[in-house]
Amino acid sequence: MRKFPRMNNPINRRVFKKKVQEQIDVKQIADKIISGDRGYLSKGITLIESNASHHRQSANELIQHILPHIGKSVRVGITGVPGAGKSTWIEAFGKTAVSKNYKTAVLAVDPSSSLSGGSILGDKTRMEFLAHHPDVFIRPSPSSGTLGGVARMTRETILLCEAAGYDLILVETVGVGQSEGIVRGMTDFFLLLSLTGAGDELQGMKKGIMELVDAVVINKADGANKEQAMKTMHDYNQILRFLTPATKGWKPRAYTCSALYNSGIEEIWDLIFSFISETKESGEFQKRRSRQAVDWMNQLVQIRLNETFFIEEKKRQMKNLEEKVRQHELSPSEAVDLLFEKYQ
Amino acid sequence: MRKFPRMNNPINRRVFKKKVQEQIDVKQIADKIISGDRGYLSKGITLIESNASHHRQSANELIQHILPHIGKSVRVGITGVPGAGKSTWIEAFGKTAVSKNYKTAVLAVDPSSSLSGGSILGDKTRMEFLAHHPDVFIRPSPSSGTLGGVARMTRETILLCEAAGYDLILVETVGVGQSEGIVRGMTDFFLLLSLTGAGDELQGMKKGIMELVDAVVINKADGANKEQAMKTMHDYNQILRFLTPATKGWKPRAYTCSALYNSGIEEIWDLIFSFISETKESGEFQKRRSRQAVDWMNQLVQIRLNETFFIEEKKRQMKNLEEKVRQHELSPSEAVDLLFEKYQ
Repeated sequence: MRKFPRMNNPINRRVFKKKVQEQIDVKQIADKIISGDRGYLSKGITLIESNASHHRQSANELIQHILPHIGKSVRVGITGVPGAGKSTWIEAFGKTAVSKNYKTAVLAVDPSSSLSGGSILGDKTRMEFLAHHPDVFIRPSPSSGTLGGVARMTRETILLCEAAGYDLILVETVGVGQSEGIVRGMTDFFLLLSLTGAGDELQGMKKGIMELVDAVVINKADGANKEQAMKTMHDYNQILRFLTPATKGWKPRAYTCSALYNSGIEEIWDLIFSFISETKESGEFQKRRSRQAVDWMNQLVQIRLNETFFIEEKKRQMKNLEEKVRQHELSPSEAVDLLFEKYQ
Repeated sequence: MRKFPRMNNPINRRVFKKKVQEQIDVKQIADKIISGDRGYLSKGITLIESNASHHRQSANELIQHILPHIGKSVRVGITGVPGAGKSTWIEAFGKTAVSKNYKTAVLAVDPSSSLSGGSILGDKTRMEFLAHHPDVFIRPSPSSGTLGGVARMTRETILLCEAAGYDLILVETVGVGQSEGIVRGMTDFFLLLSLTGAGDELQGMKKGIMELVDAVVINKADGANKEQAMKTMHDYNQILRFLTPATKGWKPRAYTCSALYNSGIEEIWDLIFSFISETKESGEFQKRRSRQAVDWMNQLVQIRLNETFFIEEKKRQMKNLEEKVRQHELSPSEAVDLLFEKYQ
């Protein structure tokens, strides 16, 4: 009675029991995931997506357990504006994958999902084939508050899916804010899905996006759209010709396809897999994966440093100082000195 | 004798005297700079470039003193590969400036200067006219170890030059590492000086550079080179057409000139000054300056956070953990947990 003085309270007893249970669970979840159990894969991802600090510890342990079983998949990132047909394209591409016996996981990074309640991949009606296929695992974007949080969860979910034996991981993003850079940083091949349009569509192209991609695919190249799609493809090739490629030794180019009529999809498949074998041969594939892990670690360090420093009071102080700097009343150096005054 | 027990030691006496002297100096240096004294301007910059911590304090005080006198100049950044003719171009452009009674300062951000001992602006023979003109102030790149350090010094040097009454500040960079982004972040107008060549010269273009520029100027458009320069200009315009402009409401374009034969320089002058009046009218000019000051503050905060955390021991630990993450022995999350274990 001395050791657990409040154990008679049923709520405290439940909490205590739960904690003990979780310590056992991690190893079990890991083993089940490695054996290919979908239910436990979902359970593992839920653990990763939890923000409770004791869950974070368990999640880290879980990942350490599965770490020897990761790294065997091909990771493909897909971005494109809403309406570019990402879901339809993934449905078509995923069909090709399962027909070749590739176990496929479909994930998403959607920084807006915390506002909209999960906009992309929520609508599974566009992926009716994949949604019901036993070799396909679909998981919508976690709806955490920050992009950094979503990024961590998706990166760790990729690892779990790999441990569960998925050969192809597709990561979709709508490209809000910095999300393309983040998805590029967790995938081997990065693809921009674009639309045909009035010829001016490239004007509104997002800053820096072209220097992240390994290929541009102009979707909906069917019927009356086909000619315009060829023109758009040409325009993209014009730009790509001048830019530094995202992957050393690989010349990114533009292609057309129609996900709806399933034309040009097989060609993109071949393209991606020749990219994978070329980069594996040159060593660029392994180098990128190592670099991505180290970059991710560095990002986590920066996030943690900021979280540690910017407690509520510091946030307020920073905001006040920022305003004075904005008005040129205080020099940035002086402002930073004031901010760190009592810290060191 | 009790108060200064070691004052009989001549070295300690000198240190003490020096400190007292410096406390007086700051206000004097500020006043002299504001009155336009070139010698004191140099002295102020030397103070800014010092890494001694008590100098940092004096430098901050100095900047606070001159802050009400800054902001009236036009700041132009110039980048280009070695051989693009930056010095010759600056000589020609500066000549135009002084002929219009613009007091001109020429600065540089050269991250390689700490290795090479100051490569750019060191060779003043290419700026013979400017080097001897009473209305021109030339200062080579500070040779500090880090790019962040060089950036801080140059930003603060810009402020001193403005307080000293310079109307036009030219900041040159060779574009090593992140230096273009840094110079873009401290200037109003950013210009890429390019060469004509075999037609393939755009291929090696640096990542992201085109989305930073307000204009591309193809230099050496003279004699037999002229035709090729027009072709290069056309190529640049092709790309610029598709990219998001660096400055809201301004369409960056490519131009040709010959700094050697002084042709096309006046046109660039007019271009820059119509940019300045347009952006001042739209409010974008003031907005950018405020944004730049706040961005700079944020960068300083990040630098300081890292300096505070990464003492020697942490650096070593980070390096070890990084290697384990690179080998996929440790997950990034787990590595970061270990790094912060004893910190919080």
